[in-house]
Amino acid sequence: METVHRIERALNPEKIVVVGASRDPNKFGYWILKALIEHGYKGKIYPVNPKADRILGLKCYQSVKSVDDEDFDLAIVAVPARFTSDVISELGEKDTNVAIVIASGFSEIGEEGRKLEEKLVEAARESNVRIIGPNTLGIINTHKKLVANFGRAIIARRHKKGPIAFLTQSGAFGQSLLCWAEDAGIGFSTFINTGNEADLTCSDFLEYLATDKNTKVIVMYVEGLRDARRFMNIAKSVTRIKPIIALKAGRTSSGARAAASHTGSMAGSDQIYDAAFKQCGILRVYDHEEMFDLAKALVSQPLPRGNRIGILTSSGGLGVQLADACETRGLKVPRFSESITRQLQGFLPRFAAVSNPVDMTSQVHLNPEWWGRCCSILLKSGEIDGLILGISAFTDVEISRIIIDAIGRSESSKPVLCTWVIGKAARRAMKYLEKKVPVYESPERAARVMAHLYKYSMIKGGH
Amino acid sequence: METVHRIERALNPEKIVVVGASRDPNKFGYWILKALIEHGYKGKIYPVNPKADRILGLKCYQSVKSVDDEDFDLAIVAVPARFTSDVISELGEKDTNVAIVIASGFSEIGEEGRKLEEKLVEAARESNVRIIGPNTLGIINTHKKLVANFGRAIIARRHKKGPIAFLTQSGAFGQSLLCWAEDAGIGFSTFINTGNEADLTCSDFLEYLATDKNTKVIVMYVEGLRDARRFMNIAKSVTRIKPIIALKAGRTSSGARAAASHTGSMAGSDQIYDAAFKQCGILRVYDHEEMFDLAKALVSQPLPRGNRIGILTSSGGLGVQLADACETRGLKVPRFSESITRQLQGFLPRFAAVSNPVDMTSQVHLNPEWWGRCCSILLKSGEIDGLILGISAFTDVEISRIIIDAIGRSESSKPVLCTWVIGKAARRAMKYLEKKVPVYESPERAARVMAHLYKYSMIKGGH
Repeated sequence: METVHRIERALNPEKIVVVGASRDPNKFGYWILKALIEHGYKGKIYPVNPKADRILGLKCYQSVKSVDDEDFDLAIVAVPARFTSDVISELGEKDTNVAIVIASGFSEIGEEGRKLEEKLVEAARESNVRIIGPNTLGIINTHKKLVANFGRAIIARRHKKGPIAFLTQSGAFGQSLLCWAEDAGIGFSTFINTGNEADLTCSDFLEYLATDKNTKVIVMYVEGLRDARRFMNIAKSVTRIKPIIALKAGRTSSGARAAASHTGSMAGSDQIYDAAFKQCGILRVYDHEEMFDLAKALVSQPLPRGNRIGILTSSGGLGVQLADACETRGLKVPRFSESITRQLQGFLPRFAAVSNPVDMTSQVHLNPEWWGRCCSILLKSGEIDGLILGISAFTDVEISRIIIDAIGRSESSKPVLCTWVIGKAARRAMKYLEKKVPVYESPERAARVMAHLYKYSMIKGGH
Repeated sequence: METVHRIERALNPEKIVVVGASRDPNKFGYWILKALIEHGYKGKIYPVNPKADRILGLKCYQSVKSVDDEDFDLAIVAVPARFTSDVISELGEKDTNVAIVIASGFSEIGEEGRKLEEKLVEAARESNVRIIGPNTLGIINTHKKLVANFGRAIIARRHKKGPIAFLTQSGAFGQSLLCWAEDAGIGFSTFINTGNEADLTCSDFLEYLATDKNTKVIVMYVEGLRDARRFMNIAKSVTRIKPIIALKAGRTSSGARAAASHTGSMAGSDQIYDAAFKQCGILRVYDHEEMFDLAKALVSQPLPRGNRIGILTSSGGLGVQLADACETRGLKVPRFSESITRQLQGFLPRFAAVSNPVDMTSQVHLNPEWWGRCCSILLKSGEIDGLILGISAFTDVEISRIIIDAIGRSESSKPVLCTWVIGKAARRAMKYLEKKVPVYESPERAARVMAHLYKYSMIKGGH
């Protein structure tokens, strides 16, 4: 657990040294420092730059050695690749805990870089400094207002605290994850761009995140694992506690070739990864849309106890598509009993469909309270384990309010998802509904999420 | 071709009679009339309602018989199901061309409705009136400002002229298609909600749309076909001229059950449909996202002559994902020749990836002109048939402008698609790029579209 404690300390630092801090906005060393200050980090910051007295209002040091402090919790190393191992040795003399090495030009560029990376790792071992990276944007801990990161889009954002941790081998992709999170109004606890993983790996961070009480869902972007067996052991125990969503890239031969020149990782056989993920109970997704679709449901919805799904729509066509999408993904859309259909027939029009899917028809637009009545009947019944709403209506927030009320009053512990396929015309109403119910832009996406929720429910139950 | 002419006449009417026109905003007969007037239809309108003198400023007639005109190009019948066949007979006496029957309560509700529908068809045959519907929202021809449609969301929209025709069995789903089209800034020529297809079917409309010079791409939502063999013959010849994109719902047993109670259609075996679509050269999609993703590329991009795809990104991770997505869908991501890699190495950083995918690295943010230089080199080369851009940048419109310029100057006839994965942070820049290059929110979606373009290219070439 020593590694876990060191990562925890790096993410909750009291003393940070920034080597290669700069006054030049064309240098990453400028942005790193600016990000730390502007996002409100409260601890001590020691900028190091031989040519400056002050940077961004902070006293600057000529060298690591000349800093009148030691035991740094975190160092950020913003110097070119060829200087990094010397800097690490200097940091070691000051008892530095963890250093983020942001430079590119290591194993991802081939033989020459691989040698530099070996030298860096050696320096780290000798000086007992653990390394994040190289070839990384850095890390974020929203709970400490720590943005130790030079991604321009990342610096420009206000980061919202929330239950998701992002663990990504790709920096630029990690950056876009954070932008998506902001768009979706999803907060996060931790962001770690692991980069080339010359020292600390995904497995180490995963082990830490399992212990982090601010993290409920772990979202990973991975191209290749350096320590597959250890990763599996760790992941298997993490998924007992919290879900791991993984996007594994480098699945195909051209993807693997690209991965090698990106983070220097060996992507390996996709079938092996797939089998390993399944065995560990990792939820595998295939792009970031699916990743976010699933993440927002995992943080807000209970898990279904079984795979029987109820479908409630204002559009017959949408009901057909949802039924297809559910069944294709291994969910069941059971016919309702007479007890339910009779209740529904009591107020729905004669030409409504009252088995499953329920199509209230476009008449529901004149009778929005039907949404609430139907939700209550279905959620209270013992005939389904989860509910998907299909809305094709052009409407104000009224129906969102009715649906949320009905879910609240039903006191059910069943997940409810929604697909609302009318685009921007109902944007306000969708946003309102999203307070309680995840909304997806297509029936496929809603059903895909429900299938994942069911899968994770089985994984947790099966442990 | 008589049927085609009758459909053409119905979509370009000079005289419309609206039976069941109403002053009551709770009645569809009110909205139908309002839609015709407000969207600027220029021909004659004869509202029929025994209890009103004027409706929405128009003189109203007691009955069809009392209208002092005949030879109606189009009738819109907004009376309850049980009165429709009598109305059709009256319309026949006035030599009506085509009647839209909007009422629900026919074959989609079971035995009783099926009898009503048979009666309706009989009346239509006897009186030589062709029928659209029943159970339909109606039709639209943007080129004639004809909105003969009671969908509330449809009436509320300004419809933009454009090259896509929507042919849909589901009304509510058709309504959401139009909302999506508006959001995406995509214009359309024709919208036809075929409903139960008691008389005129998808096949008839498809035959008409093949001849419509305002339609370049046909987008279909279908649950079941009543005349599969005829449909195949027609579709096969249509796809030689213009692409057909089809979303077929009712693929699974629960989906098929839902379809039966929706438009009364028999969904049939999905394998048979799948084989039939393939044989006809129809591009099958699985939800409306894929449908629009593809439609916007088909209207704006040339078809690729082969399946060799170039990938150009600012993010290594995105390059890996795009390569995976392309290869998974049968596209090739060939390594570039030394001639190309040397040109790229001439200005890209040492740690950039210069084979395929090309990863310019985040350094491109300081050198946005690299986008243009790389696009030119790749588009002019003979080594690829299409190009996908992967952008993870948080940026202004500058790079969009650079890319569009480079594509213009290259004078290539290769399709270019883009995935821009940073969400709203780059909304303006994305919108700007969309003037020329379709932009998708995930690498999966961009690659899926490119694979469809390649497929259609083979279909057209193979004819």
